[in-house]
Amino acid sequence: MTVNESQLRDFTQNIFLAMGCSHEHATLAADVLLKSDLRGIDSHGVARLSGYVRLWEKKRINASPDIKIVHETATTATIDGDAGLGLVVAPFAMQVAIDKAAQYGSGWVSVRNSNHFGIAGYHAMMAVEQDMIGFAMTNASPLVAPTFSNERLLGTNPMCYAFPAGKYPPVIVDMATSAAANGKLEIAQRSGKPVPEGWVQDADGKYTTDPHALKSGGSLLPLGSDREHGSHKGFGLSATVDILSGVLSGAGFGPWVPPFVAFLEPPVNPPGQGIGHFLGAMRVDGFRPVEGFKKDMDTWIERFKCASTIDESQKVIIPGEPELEAEADRRINGIPLVDAVVKDLNELAAKFGIAGL
Amino acid sequence: MTVNESQLRDFTQNIFLAMGCSHEHATLAADVLLKSDLRGIDSHGVARLSGYVRLWEKKRINASPDIKIVHETATTATIDGDAGLGLVVAPFAMQVAIDKAAQYGSGWVSVRNSNHFGIAGYHAMMAVEQDMIGFAMTNASPLVAPTFSNERLLGTNPMCYAFPAGKYPPVIVDMATSAAANGKLEIAQRSGKPVPEGWVQDADGKYTTDPHALKSGGSLLPLGSDREHGSHKGFGLSATVDILSGVLSGAGFGPWVPPFVAFLEPPVNPPGQGIGHFLGAMRVDGFRPVEGFKKDMDTWIERFKCASTIDESQKVIIPGEPELEAEADRRINGIPLVDAVVKDLNELAAKFGIAGL
Repeated sequence: MTVNESQLRDFTQNIFLAMGCSHEHATLAADVLLKSDLRGIDSHGVARLSGYVRLWEKKRINASPDIKIVHETATTATIDGDAGLGLVVAPFAMQVAIDKAAQYGSGWVSVRNSNHFGIAGYHAMMAVEQDMIGFAMTNASPLVAPTFSNERLLGTNPMCYAFPAGKYPPVIVDMATSAAANGKLEIAQRSGKPVPEGWVQDADGKYTTDPHALKSGGSLLPLGSDREHGSHKGFGLSATVDILSGVLSGAGFGPWVPPFVAFLEPPVNPPGQGIGHFLGAMRVDGFRPVEGFKKDMDTWIERFKCASTIDESQKVIIPGEPELEAEADRRINGIPLVDAVVKDLNELAAKFGIAGL
Repeated sequence: MTVNESQLRDFTQNIFLAMGCSHEHATLAADVLLKSDLRGIDSHGVARLSGYVRLWEKKRINASPDIKIVHETATTATIDGDAGLGLVVAPFAMQVAIDKAAQYGSGWVSVRNSNHFGIAGYHAMMAVEQDMIGFAMTNASPLVAPTFSNERLLGTNPMCYAFPAGKYPPVIVDMATSAAANGKLEIAQRSGKPVPEGWVQDADGKYTTDPHALKSGGSLLPLGSDREHGSHKGFGLSATVDILSGVLSGAGFGPWVPPFVAFLEPPVNPPGQGIGHFLGAMRVDGFRPVEGFKKDMDTWIERFKCASTIDESQKVIIPGEPELEAEADRRINGIPLVDAVVKDLNELAAKFGIAGL
């Protein structure tokens, strides 16, 4: 089924309103989810809506949070998300970072007591619109084992860096710090196909191609897959995200990050509150005039776009380019939804007594 | 041959003095190189000294640079390194970042017209000593091909994140964004042993285990090694380092970063000047009181140190731990140097008429 953007947006907003979100929050949360669906990142869009509702039903998501700054300097702040949707807490925090950057050149915000924030790229791109460089990261419930371990201690902990360009679209590096994002594993689970070696290990720490290995005590592997190919670097990046998002803010970290799914209970006696994020913005003109930077970014992009290729049918991809192409297509042709997601959304609609898709 | 730390330090300082560095610069540059040798990162220590001298002889390194801030806001700055040793330009820049952070919470400095800066960890750790979180990255001469390309367009572009802890040593994530650092390839070249698949490709873009493949048009692979295992993420990280260090500062970037070695000529008509770095510092107490952060860092470290292991003889390694162990050992037992390096250093000593090792 393919759904028109504005229809899906209205539907999503209505679900958030039915949860008790304010109009402003419902609009924003729907915008974050729709941005993901438009950009082709189906795992982080409306497919997650029912998950948010179930966490709200368990009172683990607060639909009317009092999001506030609890500690700050001129260019840094810690925000307590009051257990709100990460979809509204993270843009609030990014706006604080942007406001500080507008005044002092840069702004950095660590967030605790939040929930899943959707795609990191949404938040980082808020900075790009202001001719700033944007940073966004979040920790996440544990699925990834550090190098040499078979224990799930880290989330797929994404990091995003976003840079404005001139005549070309911005460069958006938005990546899980695991070898494969969990969404890719979920696709393999649905199709029943084996996954490549190097994505997952079983409970004993042996490589497996079973996409269901996580259900039997397995774990995802850090970017690099094994020590010889640099998995300690993926572990280091994931640790960096965990420390900046979790330890620095006073959120949960490591194995104490609460699960995204309502059927798993949060850890007992966690050292911090909820999920943590880290967001930042730096004014380009804090370093050099914007025009010169954008001109050089265009040179950078052009040089990499015309790189010599191994297979002439496959050119080098500028980070952010595929998502932009998906967005251009889906704005016109609509957003494809798999049957399971449509069923899920229509069940939500029935529960809240609103019109289905 | 094993050399005592202070003997090697004096020797190194004397070489820099003989090049015409000021006493202050010679002391600092020697400290950066010795830190690398002490920490067991032999590829970035005194083994590079003759390379710096050869670049100085070609007038590509300026021994008495006028390092200055050319653009700034309260918390951002761009520095022109005046073609100085990166070993002195980067600590200057990091001190600017630290001073800004002391006043405003955070400080960020992009550097152009510099040279090889040694280990990223040295600079990031300067922040840790002030109870700040340190960031350090640099672009480098092109050896790495982007995903789908067989063209060397990026350096091994390292990034370092450094976090203070309490009773434990700081967590230092210091990593090349390629699957393998060039130093590891050099070790294989000297021993003549094949390298693992996934480190290097040949001129046609095919995996090779030949450690000499770079000499015949091959290239290093980004972290992740191939698309299926996330090499586009390694490419994205490397691009991030290149943009923050090169494009943002007005340094060379991509294929226009000048080579570290004197026998290769710098590119003609580069879009910027020299090598670029990016350094940053954030006060921990800009986010939360230092004591609470350090206590939680200790909890983080303890939890990861006692992670369940796949092979009980190999525990999880906290980032920065092996380097610290090497430092403790080498401070007492001296720094081992391979014969080729000793010969190289003694030739330098003869050239400058100073005492050899």
